[in-house]
Amino acid sequence: MKRTAIPRKHADSPQELVERLISGDRRAAARAITLVEKGAAPGTELMKRLYRHMGRSMVVGITGAGGSGKSSLINHMIHVLRSQGRRVGVVAVDPTSPFSGGALLGDRLRFQAHSMDEGVYIRSMASRGYLGGLARATTDVVRIIEAMGNDVVIVETLGAGQDEVDIIHVAQTCVLVLTPGMGDDIQAMKAGIMEIADIIVVNKADLDGAETCLRSLEATVHYGLAEKDADWIPRVMPTVAASARSEDVRGIEDLVDAILAHQSYLRNGTAIHEVQAKRVEQELGLVFRDEIQKVVFKGLKGTGKKRRYIRAILEGRTDPYSVVEEVLKTFLKV
Amino acid sequence: MKRTAIPRKHADSPQELVERLISGDRRAAARAITLVEKGAAPGTELMKRLYRHMGRSMVVGITGAGGSGKSSLINHMIHVLRSQGRRVGVVAVDPTSPFSGGALLGDRLRFQAHSMDEGVYIRSMASRGYLGGLARATTDVVRIIEAMGNDVVIVETLGAGQDEVDIIHVAQTCVLVLTPGMGDDIQAMKAGIMEIADIIVVNKADLDGAETCLRSLEATVHYGLAEKDADWIPRVMPTVAASARSEDVRGIEDLVDAILAHQSYLRNGTAIHEVQAKRVEQELGLVFRDEIQKVVFKGLKGTGKKRRYIRAILEGRTDPYSVVEEVLKTFLKV
Repeated sequence: MKRTAIPRKHADSPQELVERLISGDRRAAARAITLVEKGAAPGTELMKRLYRHMGRSMVVGITGAGGSGKSSLINHMIHVLRSQGRRVGVVAVDPTSPFSGGALLGDRLRFQAHSMDEGVYIRSMASRGYLGGLARATTDVVRIIEAMGNDVVIVETLGAGQDEVDIIHVAQTCVLVLTPGMGDDIQAMKAGIMEIADIIVVNKADLDGAETCLRSLEATVHYGLAEKDADWIPRVMPTVAASARSEDVRGIEDLVDAILAHQSYLRNGTAIHEVQAKRVEQELGLVFRDEIQKVVFKGLKGTGKKRRYIRAILEGRTDPYSVVEEVLKTFLKV
Repeated sequence: MKRTAIPRKHADSPQELVERLISGDRRAAARAITLVEKGAAPGTELMKRLYRHMGRSMVVGITGAGGSGKSSLINHMIHVLRSQGRRVGVVAVDPTSPFSGGALLGDRLRFQAHSMDEGVYIRSMASRGYLGGLARATTDVVRIIEAMGNDVVIVETLGAGQDEVDIIHVAQTCVLVLTPGMGDDIQAMKAGIMEIADIIVVNKADLDGAETCLRSLEATVHYGLAEKDADWIPRVMPTVAASARSEDVRGIEDLVDAILAHQSYLRNGTAIHEVQAKRVEQELGLVFRDEIQKVVFKGLKGTGKKRRYIRAILEGRTDPYSVVEEVLKTFLKV
């Protein structure tokens, strides 16, 4: 049954909205997300209340370069998770993701099939235009989709750029998606995202070089383990879930099993507390950064000051660092 | 003649450093970049002085996804620009760029050939770990490499994520690198980077689909032109500069000609002033964001306050938004 999109005109109080959201109301979720994306007071008011209802969802990050097949993988994961009776939310940050419409028509149609399922909630983020920054908006949207009562919330990111890395840090379980052809980039990735991957997937494992890639990744993981004291050994596993053009799908159940195993590891011990604390620390940092920015931009806006400063810098009379020092003096108590 | 890396031990005054830098001293540049990367007071002091010596370089941004062949393209562009007697600087922000070592050995060796040439200065940025943020560090490094007297400064970015987009905005001429295989992503890119591209290159134009890709891009550009009042018509052009494995290289002279033509367009009219003003505005915003962040983080550090806040949020007693409001009140005069 297709839902018709009738906008709810009367404004709920933040508390009413939170209550409808917690009951799983999809329109309340859409409204909450719109508020949060605007980055203004009503969104803040909502999030303040929402933080009192910490979700119990498994938050799973799926990170990989464009073309690695993340979206196809997620599409198949949704099928497996739904067959287990779990409710699934997806937040796609990749602007080229099929979830956000920037993809092959075939893929898009397949993903839209999920939109008929009340147990699946999919939302894609624009890549820019958020007053409060993409990373902050995304972490808030993840909280909202958790609050709806989803058992699993999947966050799809490209894993390049600071915003993306900020977003990955809210995931409890981080899945890195590579492909055999990317062997050359692995060296570079080792320094970054690979450190935080709990599961490494070699997707398109039917391509040449998959075996070598898997073996080299396993060696890297075990080499890395020797250096740190870890209870969880990152899993390296092959999958095939390439595109709409191929019907060959393999390894998805194993991937879902590995994610559930990592979640059990986290929740059977104290590790989940550390993960949650890191997540809150991350969110705190993002809110800080954005709120401060808002205060300063408000202070500069519409005064013509900014234009005068720019002219002075261009004429070599001053520089951005001196300008910022001067302006900060008028704002800060320090 | 290979330079031996003897670190200069005695500390120059900021003014001495600026003077050596302006005379083109490579070691002064390396030292200046290190200072700026640290994001501390000496780097700020240096940049304040450097802004008085605005560079006259052409600043060219080369943006494209990983695997589009940006680095090979830049490598060949350096050859052409050097044959015209121009001094060239390169700042690579892509962590998988061959310039930063994350690439095929063959490519790496070819790029290193330029390191023998005193007329070429190449620097790659780490993808994270800058106290003051990657975008700010990069824009400062571009200023430093301009100050050395380079005629052209090329900035290589991936073009994904906010940091990258922030960086692209410092370029006067923006070159977007696509490949025929990326046709499906073009739709998505249209919304973002494509808007700011002055030149669109279809690299790997020997591959299938190049003709279709070129034609579709030209149509997109001309459709876009109808909507805005632009004096510069973005050029769409094919190149072949795929990898170390191919000796087939085409279209590089045309690309360099197009870049020089765009620079002439900017500098023969008033457009260059707008571009420079936008750049300064961008830099001002980055410095603002980072300086404020430093002040607040300094205030929170080492007090144990942060840990107490995180615990309170985890226990549902407060939330990041309320914490930030509380902390900001102690800092801000407003």
